[in-house]
Amino acid sequence: MWAIIVLIIFSLIAFFVTDNLIPKLKDLFIKAGLFGYDLCKVSKNKIPEALGVVSGCIFLVTSFLFIPIVFGNNLIDTRMFPHSEFAELLAALLSICCMLLLGFADDVLDLRWRYKLLLPTIASLPLLVVYYVNFNSTTIIVPIPLRQFLGHSVNIGFLYYIYMGMLAVFCTNAINIFAGINGLEVGQSVIIAVSILIFNILELKGEQIKAHTFSLYIMIPYLATTMGLLKHNWYPSRIFIGDTFCYVSVFLFMSCLSYKISYGIIFLRFMIVENYRCC
Amino acid sequence: MWAIIVLIIFSLIAFFVTDNLIPKLKDLFIKAGLFGYDLCKVSKNKIPEALGVVSGCIFLVTSFLFIPIVFGNNLIDTRMFPHSEFAELLAALLSICCMLLLGFADDVLDLRWRYKLLLPTIASLPLLVVYYVNFNSTTIIVPIPLRQFLGHSVNIGFLYYIYMGMLAVFCTNAINIFAGINGLEVGQSVIIAVSILIFNILELKGEQIKAHTFSLYIMIPYLATTMGLLKHNWYPSRIFIGDTFCYVSVFLFMSCLSYKISYGIIFLRFMIVENYRCC
Repeated sequence: MWAIIVLIIFSLIAFFVTDNLIPKLKDLFIKAGLFGYDLCKVSKNKIPEALGVVSGCIFLVTSFLFIPIVFGNNLIDTRMFPHSEFAELLAALLSICCMLLLGFADDVLDLRWRYKLLLPTIASLPLLVVYYVNFNSTTIIVPIPLRQFLGHSVNIGFLYYIYMGMLAVFCTNAINIFAGINGLEVGQSVIIAVSILIFNILELKGEQIKAHTFSLYIMIPYLATTMGLLKHNWYPSRIFIGDTFCYVSVFLFMSCLSYKISYGIIFLRFMIVENYRCC
Repeated sequence: MWAIIVLIIFSLIAFFVTDNLIPKLKDLFIKAGLFGYDLCKVSKNKIPEALGVVSGCIFLVTSFLFIPIVFGNNLIDTRMFPHSEFAELLAALLSICCMLLLGFADDVLDLRWRYKLLLPTIASLPLLVVYYVNFNSTTIIVPIPLRQFLGHSVNIGFLYYIYMGMLAVFCTNAINIFAGINGLEVGQSVIIAVSILIFNILELKGEQIKAHTFSLYIMIPYLATTMGLLKHNWYPSRIFIGDTFCYVSVFLFMSCLSYKISYGIIFLRFMIVENYRCC
């Protein structure tokens, strides 16, 4: 459990670094032509765009520095090194890094929609392979009204992987659709992250302690860097976050929930926030 | 060995995709302000910059699609899944993806030198952890004139990891220093890649067959995508490759040589090309 304490310290540092770095990098983004105007404001100042890449990079750096801490005990006696857990973490970070790259490329180059659909699906491939190797549970629980026809659960096999790939595309757009209202995209992500964190902490005494600890490893630094971003994106916004943030957030949620915890949970959380928006 | 044949087919497709995609994306890069002028030419056309990100992304996609192929047999019986080899591949791809992101961010934002020094070191962390866990050989062979004082080999311990981290920074600049002469940065990388490929093929019958096969998995798609890039970067250049390519190439070379094969080999290759340049 001391690894979690170290991670909280790392995350606090990450929060302060994000908070301090964003104002310093603003001019670089404006100089590179990455800016927009806040349409509903009287002032027509240039507001730097795509700052989500900064919080994403700081998240990655924090996670890289955390690797030797979380696997510290096993590094002393490498024969017992938990390769499968290490591969899980690497696959999650790889998918996140890949989406960070794609998101930033999208912000800079304004990619066409066909690339936007294709690349998240490909970026989720390392996650899916790890899921297949470690768990390969493709059984879904049937909703109560349909149980008299289909039974309690159905194994949908390969379709489950297509569902997971498609979920990445859905969730990206579910966050992105909030664009235009100051702080709402980041705010939604903070709420989802906090709800996942509470869920993980409550479940730490349950059977799936490893899966929930893994989720904490990803969610704690994410929440810290996102709070740093939210501070500057809060009304009146001094920065815009760009597509980068949407892509990265989704893959973070997917990574931390993909292992032994149902994908249904992430879907449910998005649905709750989306319905709240519609009301 | 059939995995290598599939990889060659994938790589050929990757070459044609790179070759076709670069002209199509040129205008997007110019529109985003990513362009330069060829100073030694009479014509003052805008030449798109940072196209190395395209070949880098296609390399990543090829590698992602190749994951189920290379671990195909083990996916059927997941109990025997080679987690350590999977972690090696993921760590290599993570470092490469991270440098692709940093390189592209550098091209877009023109980062200060302190970030340029810091981030490659951090990006090499997953590689170093994998090296530590799987091999942890920090013994170096002493050059012949010094052997009477130091013996045949010296274990330099932790300093070896600092050396590997620093090597990433050195090699990046060793490629980048060629910037300004059409096709030279990419040309050098192709020559180094071919020399590593020949070395791997010659050593396939030796003791380290796994390490050299791993290196082939990385080098074959890299060579294909880089050839696609070279075609457009060849004199007279229609594209510039940007810092992205330098960062990515170095991490590719480091990844494929870090496992059981000495880091000295990459150093030697860079030294040969650098000396040739100086002559």
